[in-house]
Amino acid sequence: MQARTEQVQSRSGPVCGFWGLCFLLWALGSVSSVAGAAGEDTQNVLLIYVDDLGYGDTGAYGHRVVKTPHIDRLAAEGMRFTQFYAPSALCSPSRAGLLTGRTPYRTGVESWIPDDSQVALGHNETTLADLAKARGYRTAVIGKWHLNGGLHMQGTPQPRDFGFDHQYGLAAWVKNASVRESKELPRRGAMFPDNMYRNNEAVGPTKKYSAELVSDEAIDWLSGAKDPFFLLLTYSEVHTPIASPPEYLAQYQDYLTQEARDNPLLFYFDWRNRPWRGRGEYYANVSYMDAQLGRVIEYLRGKGVLDDTLIIFSSDNGPVTDAALTPWELGMAGETAGLRGKKRFLFEGGLRVPGIIRYPERIEAGRVESRPATALDVFPTLAQWLGVAVDSSVPLDGESLWPLIDGGDFQRQQAFYWSIPTPDGMEFAVRDGNWKLILDADERPQYLFDLASDWYEVNNLLETEPAVRERLLQIYAARRAAVESDPLALARKTHKR
Amino acid sequence: MQARTEQVQSRSGPVCGFWGLCFLLWALGSVSSVAGAAGEDTQNVLLIYVDDLGYGDTGAYGHRVVKTPHIDRLAAEGMRFTQFYAPSALCSPSRAGLLTGRTPYRTGVESWIPDDSQVALGHNETTLADLAKARGYRTAVIGKWHLNGGLHMQGTPQPRDFGFDHQYGLAAWVKNASVRESKELPRRGAMFPDNMYRNNEAVGPTKKYSAELVSDEAIDWLSGAKDPFFLLLTYSEVHTPIASPPEYLAQYQDYLTQEARDNPLLFYFDWRNRPWRGRGEYYANVSYMDAQLGRVIEYLRGKGVLDDTLIIFSSDNGPVTDAALTPWELGMAGETAGLRGKKRFLFEGGLRVPGIIRYPERIEAGRVESRPATALDVFPTLAQWLGVAVDSSVPLDGESLWPLIDGGDFQRQQAFYWSIPTPDGMEFAVRDGNWKLILDADERPQYLFDLASDWYEVNNLLETEPAVRERLLQIYAARRAAVESDPLALARKTHKR
Repeated sequence: MQARTEQVQSRSGPVCGFWGLCFLLWALGSVSSVAGAAGEDTQNVLLIYVDDLGYGDTGAYGHRVVKTPHIDRLAAEGMRFTQFYAPSALCSPSRAGLLTGRTPYRTGVESWIPDDSQVALGHNETTLADLAKARGYRTAVIGKWHLNGGLHMQGTPQPRDFGFDHQYGLAAWVKNASVRESKELPRRGAMFPDNMYRNNEAVGPTKKYSAELVSDEAIDWLSGAKDPFFLLLTYSEVHTPIASPPEYLAQYQDYLTQEARDNPLLFYFDWRNRPWRGRGEYYANVSYMDAQLGRVIEYLRGKGVLDDTLIIFSSDNGPVTDAALTPWELGMAGETAGLRGKKRFLFEGGLRVPGIIRYPERIEAGRVESRPATALDVFPTLAQWLGVAVDSSVPLDGESLWPLIDGGDFQRQQAFYWSIPTPDGMEFAVRDGNWKLILDADERPQYLFDLASDWYEVNNLLETEPAVRERLLQIYAARRAAVESDPLALARKTHKR
Repeated sequence: MQARTEQVQSRSGPVCGFWGLCFLLWALGSVSSVAGAAGEDTQNVLLIYVDDLGYGDTGAYGHRVVKTPHIDRLAAEGMRFTQFYAPSALCSPSRAGLLTGRTPYRTGVESWIPDDSQVALGHNETTLADLAKARGYRTAVIGKWHLNGGLHMQGTPQPRDFGFDHQYGLAAWVKNASVRESKELPRRGAMFPDNMYRNNEAVGPTKKYSAELVSDEAIDWLSGAKDPFFLLLTYSEVHTPIASPPEYLAQYQDYLTQEARDNPLLFYFDWRNRPWRGRGEYYANVSYMDAQLGRVIEYLRGKGVLDDTLIIFSSDNGPVTDAALTPWELGMAGETAGLRGKKRFLFEGGLRVPGIIRYPERIEAGRVESRPATALDVFPTLAQWLGVAVDSSVPLDGESLWPLIDGGDFQRQQAFYWSIPTPDGMEFAVRDGNWKLILDADERPQYLFDLASDWYEVNNLLETEPAVRERLLQIYAARRAAVESDPLALARKTHKR
């Protein structure tokens, strides 16, 4: 467990994006770094961030049917968190939070971003890729981006403006115009993505499902050079429209109804007046994604660099369950392992996700960590590991996990804080210790749970614990005020781009 | 398909219950009866009404895991409805509706009935058992009653006040004081019911799970005499606390987590701060119930009277799913086959339930009926079949299904109408044709769905179909006014008991 302490020369002074604005990455001098022993040029980072995968969707987290051998092995060889949180219960905000260590509402990303929207991750944000670049890493984001209105949009912040050398993938979710715009109803056809971009150039039609394209690109990029790499690998599975090769569907035939067997390539929007399809398509998609991310991991293992790679695996929010509320949620079968809620809700089922770190240098195999953590912690954790100092005037919401990883005392300084847009307005939640408060869109406290005795949030203590309620309300109010006066957000508002 | 037309002499004039009040069962003279051909003394009625079983919880309705061979065979030998409704999304009101053919809010039963409550099915209601008694049938209710505050309560309407000769079973759900009041936490032990009553006398502790006790009693009662019988068989499965013999749990080991395997007899209230248990216990309970109701059916088959028995099978409301909202819902895994909502909600998942009729004399095996029906239809259907005229001044909400069963034109005269108590007040729903309107507790229209194109209620047309919305609002208002001026309900309010 040897740690390096050294001077780090990162990009200092202004770093300018192509749209003509500059931001600062500070190298503040002597920084305590914790990167592993083997020599810095062999220490890599693989951050696997998947889409809408639920807390209970994998074998490692107790699913009784779905086979996820690669994710399970990551957990068995690394550390599995039982209380790992997404920054948001929605995709774009969570991704903004992951990349910056800042609660997404500081970053300009408050909800999922529609096509062609002008909303984007704030151009003055510092990302994980910036940290890695500051240490000379090769960097790439391969998979889903969804931090702007489209990868085709010039004049909008794009991945390569945030420290990524290489980009491949799609903006939001898999599209295929020939299926989607079919005149014949119900629409049928393989959802091979036709909305993939490489370095912001359209790739055109493809002939594979999304995860395989992403893994192909990742392996190709990884094989390209010897420098240490930072790879953000963001599968768009298991977001709708889920689409998997036939062999994965065959694996879960027992969980498909006759309707699904007879209509394997029905476009998901056309399911709404047809019989239930069973859970098999969802299960197939989880296993397909697992197999594809397994290809990348096994590539690194084969290359002999796996143990020199810090691997972090998580999901952007809770799952879409069989309790569909919208047409695009139909046919899904995500599992929260009994946690209340789902994607889009501030209950645990919407926020708590799988969280696995594999780094044999520092983490004993098979460890299970019950202290809560969040994907917002990745940024300060990585900064400390890389020995990159970050601008202390920019507030972070995450905290470095190295003390926790090293088994020491880990006292989180700030409460967890979430918000979510609803048709009625923003809803908020805070967690301090084991207490969690959820507020409705009128800022009225709605639920107070003691997660220590009430894992499933079924026992609302709002009326019986007024002192706790008031304490958490104050934490909420102070945090919200801080978020709303965030210096980077204010800077964006006062500067025309 | 020979039908009898004959004079029926039922109980006419006042019929008095032991609490000293009387009600009238009218024999209005010549009535067109549709009972089968073989001679009236061999025509029996078996009405199986189970608890909280979901639309998608059986093989017959597409479940891909749970084995329900007896229910599936009933469907294969009879007619399965794809749109069969419970009278309510809650147990007591649905049972009141089933017994009377009247929407439960006419009958005095507006919500589930707590222990020792004075709420009960109105003493002046006429029930299915009254119809059967009027034709000289032996009658029994074996299983759950839940139409009053307890089977021990003198001075409260009890089953034998509503035309049942024989009663066996429990009031609300399975209880076992030795487990429930255990000082050792978490509580452990087999939930053998100790709250069973036979003809309102406490039975005391038992050594079998509920469904087996119920089937034992049913077979015993059926073997007792030769008269035609009317048996209301009301298993308390799969209501919590679910409890099944070990061999059924063993059958679903693959769907139990390690926690559940290690703690098979944990009292369900103590699950709330423990890991997810998987779906296996729920599946086991469905299969256990199926096996036990199968024992009764096979007893009749063995006796050679099965084909002379009109069998109706349904459930009192939608299932408790894995989306638990209360401590007593934890660990459940009911399936709506994708329908929105669950028990306690006015979406289809709360209201639409399995509905099967087996009667080979008139119904072709394997028939699937897509026209909507409701358990409220059972009363008028049975009255017509038995040739018993009912008091035309007492409004019914159900309609006789014989025209539909006979494959003819079936034009429902009244819209479907439901209400449900919520913490904010009563919510209401109406369905007319394929249009369904749901109102919130302030009587504001909340959802408008076209079930023909939107089976899963994910496309709210409230704003885009104002004319339909207004038409359904008028239907709702007229029906609610009629229900609130129900003559039997008003009579109960103006007469002291």
